[in-house]
Amino acid sequence: MVGGGPGAGIAPAHRRAARLDGRFELVAGAFSRKPEGNRAMGEELGIAPDRTYRDFAAMAEAEARRSDGIECASIVTPNSTHAAASLAFIRNGIDVVCDKPMTMSLAEALEVERAAATHGVLFALTHNYSAYPLVAEARHQIGSGELGAIRVVTVEYAHGTRNRLIEAEGDAKMAWRVDSAIAGPSTVLGDIGTHAHHLLRRFTGLEIESLTAELSTMVPGRVADDNAFVNLRFHGGARGQLWASMVAAGNGHGLRIRVFGEKASLHWDQETPDELFLRADGAPYRTLRRGEAYLCATARHASRTKAGNPEGYFGAFANIYADAAEVISARRDGRPANPCASSFATARDGVLGMAFIEAAIASHRNGGAWTDAAPDARR
Amino acid sequence: MVGGGPGAGIAPAHRRAARLDGRFELVAGAFSRKPEGNRAMGEELGIAPDRTYRDFAAMAEAEARRSDGIECASIVTPNSTHAAASLAFIRNGIDVVCDKPMTMSLAEALEVERAAATHGVLFALTHNYSAYPLVAEARHQIGSGELGAIRVVTVEYAHGTRNRLIEAEGDAKMAWRVDSAIAGPSTVLGDIGTHAHHLLRRFTGLEIESLTAELSTMVPGRVADDNAFVNLRFHGGARGQLWASMVAAGNGHGLRIRVFGEKASLHWDQETPDELFLRADGAPYRTLRRGEAYLCATARHASRTKAGNPEGYFGAFANIYADAAEVISARRDGRPANPCASSFATARDGVLGMAFIEAAIASHRNGGAWTDAAPDARR
Amino acid sequence: MVGGGPGAGIAPAHRRAARLDGRFELVAGAFSRKPEGNRAMGEELGIAPDRTYRDFAAMAEAEARRSDGIECASIVTPNSTHAAASLAFIRNGIDVVCDKPMTMSLAEALEVERAAATHGVLFALTHNYSAYPLVAEARHQIGSGELGAIRVVTVEYAHGTRNRLIEAEGDAKMAWRVDSAIAGPSTVLGDIGTHAHHLLRRFTGLEIESLTAELSTMVPGRVADDNAFVNLRFHGGARGQLWASMVAAGNGHGLRIRVFGEKASLHWDQETPDELFLRADGAPYRTLRRGEAYLCATARHASRTKAGNPEGYFGAFANIYADAAEVISARRDGRPANPCASSFATARDGVLGMAFIEAAIASHRNGGAWTDAAPDARR
Amino acid sequence: MVGGGPGAGIAPAHRRAARLDGRFELVAGAFSRKPEGNRAMGEELGIAPDRTYRDFAAMAEAEARRSDGIECASIVTPNSTHAAASLAFIRNGIDVVCDKPMTMSLAEALEVERAAATHGVLFALTHNYSAYPLVAEARHQIGSGELGAIRVVTVEYAHGTRNRLIEAEGDAKMAWRVDSAIAGPSTVLGDIGTHAHHLLRRFTGLEIESLTAELSTMVPGRVADDNAFVNLRFHGGARGQLWASMVAAGNGHGLRIRVFGEKASLHWDQETPDELFLRADGAPYRTLRRGEAYLCATARHASRTKAGNPEGYFGAFANIYADAAEVISARRDGRPANPCASSFATARDGVLGMAFIEAAIASHRNGGAWTDAAPDARR
Repeated sequence: MVGGGPGAGIAPAHRRAARLDGRFELVAGAFSRKPEGNRAMGEELGIAPDRTYRDFAAMAEAEARRSDGIECASIVTPNSTHAAASLAFIRNGIDVVCDKPMTMSLAEALEVERAAATHGVLFALTHNYSAYPLVAEARHQIGSGELGAIRVVTVEYAHGTRNRLIEAEGDAKMAWRVDSAIAGPSTVLGDIGTHAHHLLRRFTGLEIESLTAELSTMVPGRVADDNAFVNLRFHGGARGQLWASMVAAGNGHGLRIRVFGEKASLHWDQETPDELFLRADGAPYRTLRRGEAYLCATARHASRTKAGNPEGYFGAFANIYADAAEVISARRDGRPANPCASSFATARDGVLGMAFIEAAIASHRNGGAWTDAAPDARR
Repeated sequence: MVGGGPGAGIAPAHRRAARLDGRFELVAGAFSRKPEGNRAMGEELGIAPDRTYRDFAAMAEAEARRSDGIECASIVTPNSTHAAASLAFIRNGIDVVCDKPMTMSLAEALEVERAAATHGVLFALTHNYSAYPLVAEARHQIGSGELGAIRVVTVEYAHGTRNRLIEAEGDAKMAWRVDSAIAGPSTVLGDIGTHAHHLLRRFTGLEIESLTAELSTMVPGRVADDNAFVNLRFHGGARGQLWASMVAAGNGHGLRIRVFGEKASLHWDQETPDELFLRADGAPYRTLRRGEAYLCATARHASRTKAGNPEGYFGAFANIYADAAEVISARRDGRPANPCASSFATARDGVLGMAFIEAAIASHRNGGAWTDAAPDARR
Repeated sequence: MVGGGPGAGIAPAHRRAARLDGRFELVAGAFSRKPEGNRAMGEELGIAPDRTYRDFAAMAEAEARRSDGIECASIVTPNSTHAAASLAFIRNGIDVVCDKPMTMSLAEALEVERAAATHGVLFALTHNYSAYPLVAEARHQIGSGELGAIRVVTVEYAHGTRNRLIEAEGDAKMAWRVDSAIAGPSTVLGDIGTHAHHLLRRFTGLEIESLTAELSTMVPGRVADDNAFVNLRFHGGARGQLWASMVAAGNGHGLRIRVFGEKASLHWDQETPDELFLRADGAPYRTLRRGEAYLCATARHASRTKAGNPEGYFGAFANIYADAAEVISARRDGRPANPCASSFATARDGVLGMAFIEAAIASHRNGGAWTDAAPDARR
Repeated sequence: MVGGGPGAGIAPAHRRAARLDGRFELVAGAFSRKPEGNRAMGEELGIAPDRTYRDFAAMAEAEARRSDGIECASIVTPNSTHAAASLAFIRNGIDVVCDKPMTMSLAEALEVERAAATHGVLFALTHNYSAYPLVAEARHQIGSGELGAIRVVTVEYAHGTRNRLIEAEGDAKMAWRVDSAIAGPSTVLGDIGTHAHHLLRRFTGLEIESLTAELSTMVPGRVADDNAFVNLRFHGGARGQLWASMVAAGNGHGLRIRVFGEKASLHWDQETPDELFLRADGAPYRTLRRGEAYLCATARHASRTKAGNPEGYFGAFANIYADAAEVISARRDGRPANPCASSFATARDGVLGMAFIEAAIASHRNGGAWTDAAPDARR
């Protein structure tokens, strides 16, 4: 693991996710750039002292040389080091599971994507909110034609966790997230907008053709943006809205998606992830539930307990690690991986996420003009 | 009553709304331009034959001359005759309750507003979805500072009732609503967008400064628009989104609003109108319920039964008629009207609704450019 | 109308219910035993002075003699005069709509039932909470075999409106309801338990074979009961629970029913009456909505507005008056009444309600022994 | 681990729960009485062959002799071996985490309780559904007087997983649960009723004084019971209902509790465990959310991620293992354990659970007579 020193935000969730299904063992790390914190975390986690490294570069090189070196590196640093750390492991032939957003820029993302392809390693991005079983079911229902052609998509990730000027209140865990130099050129899109962007692509299968964006800073005194309205035109003619906000007080976690088609719509909310609502006018509304035998194979694969026992956040996050383990072990064993092991985002998904951010910034700077979504991301 | 002949859509709701509280008696009408339908409806409603008129012009003149002439005319025709019918009664000194949207254009709306002022009569617009008690409570909470400064508003009125090409299927009640010549220059904004627009103004007290709009036609073969995304900038700096759609399959009635402030947010849905959600991070979420003594005076005034008995659609619609009756009788009695009798929209509200439509159309035609919301509506 | 003087609780709802569909005109009344209150209410309601009567006996006789006498009397007095007032009108050949519970005892109820049969008049009991469209739909679904054989029913009517000793606080509207001499031998069963009892019979079609009851007084200082647990065995083998309580603080209106069958279950709550949940394991849950074309004829008949506009409490209450009007006018016109006009409870329903109360009291006094539900009610 | 061989139901949840927080390592087991299954499971879990034992007796003895022997045994066998397996480890000084119900009889439970006391080891019972953070918060709210004196409690654990005669369909995982010889004298109470019983005690702090029970077999052909209605009288005067059912088709997981006090009520449902509803009449309803700083220390201790990320079933189950680890390591380290480490049920809780079952059976056999709840369980 790279990152995840004392006080880190997301690292404990990664560790729990990796542990839940028992397919990973944490044996090495570069947890913090501060030597004491690094050592302390290594000890707390039971890491051998010689495998607690001062930085990711040292770790990648040393582990690559060990006969019992790590098979996979989990990168949970702030956004600004995602690219460099990923490249260090990739170039040493070590698989990577990386927290989102993929990088700081589209150019970096394309470089990581090319490196992973060149070295033949896995690059898995932890868009954990898209790893719920019923997100896969939604895609299956849409793919099966249950909605007909999609007309409108609305997705939002809007919460109020930065509704005050917390960066002035000494909250270290939060401060970097509103600092463009670390969090990226659009804080609100990099930190949470990419989750919404990936969810809508994974949920619907649609790709964005063009967009118009308005990025705002609503909290007085803040330098970064904290609210984004992005309107979308999809290939094929559907329209959509994406709203990302850090100033939506009292909105809970706030990640929700609705997809409206010719015949019906799908509704899903991350706070109640075990229910997927399928609604057509003129017919009883339907609620699909995680854990039921009627779900598609991928949704069943992504589930551990029967319907009614809420599987929750750690279940979804663990799916990403379990599926990465499946892909890695299948490759090692020379067998095809289970095709249902698809909960993680790929390098391509990450590239499109960075392209989305850059297009939104360009539109915003151009007075909200309609902007091609991903010209430079195309292969 | 003008309009409301056999098969009319909204007229029965107006009649039930007027009856519920027993403050109106229906004694005259011009129900249909088709003589047989007009006569039949007059008979069905127990109207004296000499007070069943061939058209609104004849009705306005004749009733104005009778010593027992009507005090108030209810206008429930398709949109294109709202202005002419309203003017006919206003100019004969008869109060008017009129269905929305106010008129076909801003110019017409301004003319009606001026006429009502000149003749000293009431012009009440039936934005019935804004007449629920908890909409008034929301305004009270916001006015009391419970949310702090408002940062973001999202309002939507999106349903799927015209998700098929119903105008090609012989549905007369629906057909005119997708015909610009009768429904107005933007069908989706005139028919339902104005409800969302009025709700957001009444709920929040905010006024729109500028907007950008994208109007679309999603159903193949349709000539009118059926989906609108409108982004909003409010005086004072808040931002917002308004989504109006007739193609949101399976979205139920689909009128919902959320207001996010510095300290908390309010959430309300017309399908569950007896609950208002007041949510702040770091405190238990609160649910306010219609019928409770802790609500503001206007919310209590607008309610007829105790909390837990769902008061529903007819209760809200009846508030408009009851409040119009209060204003009319207070003026007749030379006393101040109950200040809580405020559930109906005014001529000014209607004018701003038409200005909103025209600004949205202008923005849309200009590639989504930010457009001043109401330059010509200002007094 | 008999009862409904100044400050009366339920009378305004009856008047609104009778007005909503325009099939009744209120022309006579004996509103209060207090002369001033009686006269004042007559004036407020626009009743001719000679048709504002000092009591129901005078009213029944005088109206029966008038050529334009009332067709139907609405009885909204406290429980203790339901029987005498009903009999006065019935014996004068006047149809009766009566508030629940039917009477103070089974013997009285049987007398009213026999009198109505003898005189050929309608006796309609306003179990308004069973008059919602989706209650009829539930019965239809069960009758259609959608649930298979019913196994378990749970019904509850539990709220907290008498959770304090309000009878000691001078609340006149509430005080009589906890006074056995006026409200009946079991206050909690007479006032609200009979609503739950009727709902379960109307919803399911089941009849109770035997029961065991525990009646309790939970509020210190109260003389009447305020909480009842009644366990049920139905003809055919199903089991059930009925809970009636006035001390369930914070439980809202609190009338809910669930029916579990071999194949699926139905769930309904009076606070959200426009939704009926039909749930089977191993299949998506279904939500049926009022106003949809897929509902049974009776549910469609009982509905006035499209799905999504909450029809609410007054809609259900008005169904009873509208259906009584249909039965009365059909009989007058010599035609069969619309078979869907079935929202009101009959004299037989009222008789079984009184039998239920008496059986529950008998069980309670006998230490909770299983008790035959209705031996003396059988015809 | 004892039990949890191939195809076992609950064992994978125990393993995930033990892994989530990284405080346990699985190093030994007696997974199955079938040698092949036992060996295969040991291999799958990476257990050394010499620590994969043929049965729990051999395991307890051998591990007690090893210097690196297990500190704690997790017992996940069918109910009939809980007592014997627990005693084997307890008598060898090894701490025990045991699945519920504690034993097959009250006598056995008392024996286990005494043995654990004598040997000074931990006996933790996995009533995992009571280990959610908001269950602890409910107890805190009640203890703080937020509800006033409790008047009525309703708890139910009713699902439809055995609504068909699955024991005749070859479902091995389910078959033993409806076999009294393995599941206990009342199947429905042993398997699920004890969860409801423990939840109500943990949630409220109330203890049952007496009860009346009706146990039924609703599925034709079944020999065990599958539905239980139990009415309760608590010490202090409160009344309650407990419903346990395996035939409630379409009721989801079905574990829910409501507690009504003088001033307010609490409502909680295991399917949405991150929300606790606190409702008083005359005040806005409140929703308390897991992960918030306003919760009590125990509720905060039991939580791993911020509000809005659903923590779910594995989080609650893992609390039991984490709290057992805390108690065990505190004892080893000679320090007081964190007083918040209280999510597991104790031997005393298990004893009262068995007393509850035996009292309910006695009442049922005695025609539903009121029966003392726990005469022989008292110490």
